Amino acid sequence: MIPTLADIHAAAERLAGTAHRTPVLTSSSLDALAGLTLLFKCENLQRGGAYKFRGAFNALRALPPEQAAHGVVTHSSGNHATCLALAARLLGVPAHIVLPRNAPRIKQRAVADFGGHITLCEPTLAARQAEADRIQAATGAVFIHPYDNPLVIAGQGTIALEMLEQNPDLEVLIAPVSGGGLLSGLCLTAHAIAPNVEVWGAEPALADDAFRSLHEGRLVPNLNSATIADGLRASLSERTFTIIRQHARGILIVTEDQILSTMRLLWERMKLVVEPSGAVPLAGVLAHPEKFRGRRVGIVLTGGNVDLDRLPWQPTVEAQQRN
Amino acid sequence: MIPTLADIHAAAERLAGTAHRTPVLTSSSLDALAGLTLLFKCENLQRGGAYKFRGAFNALRALPPEQAAHGVVTHSSGNHATCLALAARLLGVPAHIVLPRNAPRIKQRAVADFGGHITLCEPTLAARQAEADRIQAATGAVFIHPYDNPLVIAGQGTIALEMLEQNPDLEVLIAPVSGGGLLSGLCLTAHAIAPNVEVWGAEPALADDAFRSLHEGRLVPNLNSATIADGLRASLSERTFTIIRQHARGILIVTEDQILSTMRLLWERMKLVVEPSGAVPLAGVLAHPEKFRGRRVGIVLTGGNVDLDRLPWQPTVEAQQRN
Repeated sequence: MIPTLADIHAAAERLAGTAHRTPVLTSSSLDALAGLTLLFKCENLQRGGAYKFRGAFNALRALPPEQAAHGVVTHSSGNHATCLALAARLLGVPAHIVLPRNAPRIKQRAVADFGGHITLCEPTLAARQAEADRIQAATGAVFIHPYDNPLVIAGQGTIALEMLEQNPDLEVLIAPVSGGGLLSGLCLTAHAIAPNVEVWGAEPALADDAFRSLHEGRLVPNLNSATIADGLRASLSERTFTIIRQHARGILIVTEDQILSTMRLLWERMKLVVEPSGAVPLAGVLAHPEKFRGRRVGIVLTGGNVDLDRLPWQPTVEAQQRN
Repeated sequence: MIPTLADIHAAAERLAGTAHRTPVLTSSSLDALAGLTLLFKCENLQRGGAYKFRGAFNALRALPPEQAAHGVVTHSSGNHATCLALAARLLGVPAHIVLPRNAPRIKQRAVADFGGHITLCEPTLAARQAEADRIQAATGAVFIHPYDNPLVIAGQGTIALEMLEQNPDLEVLIAPVSGGGLLSGLCLTAHAIAPNVEVWGAEPALADDAFRSLHEGRLVPNLNSATIADGLRASLSERTFTIIRQHARGILIVTEDQILSTMRLLWERMKLVVEPSGAVPLAGVLAHPEKFRGRRVGIVLTGGNVDLDRLPWQPTVEAQQRN
């Protein structure tokens, strides 16, 4: 099932008063650098530090009370896990989060801080799914997929609703693409209410499954998870592929170096803590400026959950010692 | 001369369309931690990365064209220098910036990026003033003091105007105090339009001249510049002391450890790049929560200009090698 505009409006109503209506910020110096007008939708300032809060909260809030009482379960080592735990706490619903044993300590702590019940498992997709299935069978908890879920997609679509209210003269909208929940939501919203707005995805060359899927006309899974953009390692689902194939204008590809330098640029010029995945759309614009010259380009800064003990542009102690 | 409400309104008109109307952001988790409602006025997102842009631009914009043509001069190693250079570039006015030889490279680069003419001098106040005097005599440039200037104070006062429009139910407003230009502007504005709002200053224990001046009833200069809050090492002037003595409710004192841990908290929870000085007011609230319990407390996040190569909570390579 593909969400409709009515589903996206219903999501906006569920989120009103709970999710932040995040600001759209601008920077003259970045505009000059890019040769266009950049409008940054700051979902790194969203509750839980990421846009994932919208989809997670919408999916939970829409559950019938008798289902919600059994709780929810997901497997994820990223922002979906944290945001689902936060949404569940706000709604008084138990949240079971299956994390791979090697998930960063900072992510484990964030889930625990929001009261999520953590189960650790081996770091394979099969082990994660098996553990989630076991919890589902034992507790009756509802499985909330991080992106292949119409309520999650509708929740992420509310970002485009807000952006078009905040900036009615928007011409382009760009977001990172991983599993495609965010990009699908933006595509559906823009197509319904502002069909002239071009919606683009952006992804690392090291995880370019959306690009290859569109190019080959069939779902090509991502087999490489080496990109620094740790939020962009998933693959499209049939549902998100169908939506993106129909409505997205294209996918911008960026290198690891471009992600890193753009992330630092955002911290320096915008004074915003943005995670590597969140820097990918601006990196795409800076790598392909000819596509957007002179236009009003919206960028979704997707999240700000970063380990502040060491920033990715800082050399490790070992590297410093070698020099 | 002390600025009037009319001067502050005139400043707001000069800044309209040029300065950012910075957002006021909130955080449920920080509210829970502090036991009150925090409203963060994000001047770290201001042009030039600091509230200083307001005072600098207002002072320049108010100059008669025949004076502006000779340019402006200041001595400062901080955000006033950067913001004056930016304001001057926007207005097509030459800006001469006297910097001590030991000013951080990052500050020198920022001034140069905005087209400021840099003169390096010995790192003493006497040498800085002598060099500024020399430039003034040679070029006819107007000296723009970083805080002891009614137009600068009026410019900073526009922060309180905006905040009270954005949050009419504000009960407390807290800002860092160094030379006192910002705190004076907030005091004058709040006293004129919302006299029930308590205005507080906050400063490091290592640079507590405002606290001591209020306590002793006379201007006590700051002799120590060891605080990590590099924007808070100046001393009040007679003008700012007079205003603050009359209108400020008090000064909160914080330790270096409190500044550091609060700075990190702001980065982690608010996803904002905030410099050490900008963390001082929240550190003051967290150190003295009993003063504000349950109230709606506005905090000015003053700036976000930080060297991203090494964050202050990160150990140096040498320290890591020792461990």
